[in-house]
Amino acid sequence: MNVKQMVGEKAAEYVKEGMTVGLGTGSTAYYLVEALGKRVKEGLKITGVTTSTRTKEQAEALNIPLANLNDVTKIDLTIDGSDEVSENHQGIKGGGGALLFEKLVANASDKVIWIVDDSKMVKTLGAFPLPVEIVSFGYKQLFRLFESNNLHPELRLNESKEIYVTDGGHYIVDLHLGAIENPHEMAIWLDGLTGVVEHGLFLDMVNTVIVGHGNTVEVLDIR
Amino acid sequence: MNVKQMVGEKAAEYVKEGMTVGLGTGSTAYYLVEALGKRVKEGLKITGVTTSTRTKEQAEALNIPLANLNDVTKIDLTIDGSDEVSENHQGIKGGGGALLFEKLVANASDKVIWIVDDSKMVKTLGAFPLPVEIVSFGYKQLFRLFESNNLHPELRLNESKEIYVTDGGHYIVDLHLGAIENPHEMAIWLDGLTGVVEHGLFLDMVNTVIVGHGNTVEVLDIR
Repeated sequence: MNVKQMVGEKAAEYVKEGMTVGLGTGSTAYYLVEALGKRVKEGLKITGVTTSTRTKEQAEALNIPLANLNDVTKIDLTIDGSDEVSENHQGIKGGGGALLFEKLVANASDKVIWIVDDSKMVKTLGAFPLPVEIVSFGYKQLFRLFESNNLHPELRLNESKEIYVTDGGHYIVDLHLGAIENPHEMAIWLDGLTGVVEHGLFLDMVNTVIVGHGNTVEVLDIR
Repeated sequence: MNVKQMVGEKAAEYVKEGMTVGLGTGSTAYYLVEALGKRVKEGLKITGVTTSTRTKEQAEALNIPLANLNDVTKIDLTIDGSDEVSENHQGIKGGGGALLFEKLVANASDKVIWIVDDSKMVKTLGAFPLPVEIVSFGYKQLFRLFESNNLHPELRLNESKEIYVTDGGHYIVDLHLGAIENPHEMAIWLDGLTGVVEHGLFLDMVNTVIVGHGNTVEVLDIR
């Protein structure tokens, strides 16, 4: 069993009868959704809230009952991957392009679990490029602002080398920062920029991180 | 001549040969665009950057040459209406639904002029409902947050009583606040909310306000 599958299956154990569960997006969350699909087939009753078109299609194929984020008052637990987790348990997400919906679902959740392999655990955030979801209208103005601030922006393209468009209809710029010394400061700055819809800094948000190391699983309870 | 026409024509005098001009949206900006169309017909050479589909259609019909915000390095001057202007010259905009594109264009501009009739001049912002442009996915979560903070949100509908959709593909919630004692604090709070794309507080942005009082025009140079 690969590490992603191992942590995905471990996280599925946290899902209890009757829960409303936020379902993340990405190659690790994929295994979580597979494991939940198996438990649903065995009789588990849950309601899923998906964070992307991709995860929605996967969950539907597994007959996991789904609700729209609009139609739930709250989510009991959201389980998602993360592209980087710092030693302070702050995260960068959005490598899969679903950061906006992932953050909206996480914000509506009582508890958030991230599932990662240990390559994602870092001292300082920022080696992974920081995804920033932006409005398409006049996006080059914002791109130039990032350039002039030496944030090394790169417009994300899809496999056909066209501009990648998120499920929300926006573009993504990946900022190649190397290291983010003060993630909170960076988040506030990005939040204040007109045209920035959301960014991939997920701060003070995760309750539990499940880390896969080779054949073992480590559970970090944060808050 | 009505007051809106009077200030629109006055503002058109600020537009000089060769300028790139941001063209606002709304019932007052309408007269500015008409006046510029007349001057273009008489030989004035300018390039317009529009802030909405509506203004784009009007400018095209008047043969005003247009450029996309992406394709200009900067805008010399943007002229737009405003729904409220406080005694500190802060503004609320977005009654016409174009706040996001209006703010993107204003941010790219060397100078910003607002044209208003004196009914828009207020001591404190907030009698006019504050428009907040939000992501449609799961928007009811944000709506409930506004409700629980006693911000009296109202989802904007179009003339057919369907949800109003902006040119950027988002929804608008109007916050009925009565008075906004600290607009900067409110702006920072809104900026930090996931799902908020932009809000109608236009702070520390305007250089000149042209105010129509009955038959006279007052020009306030701010900065």
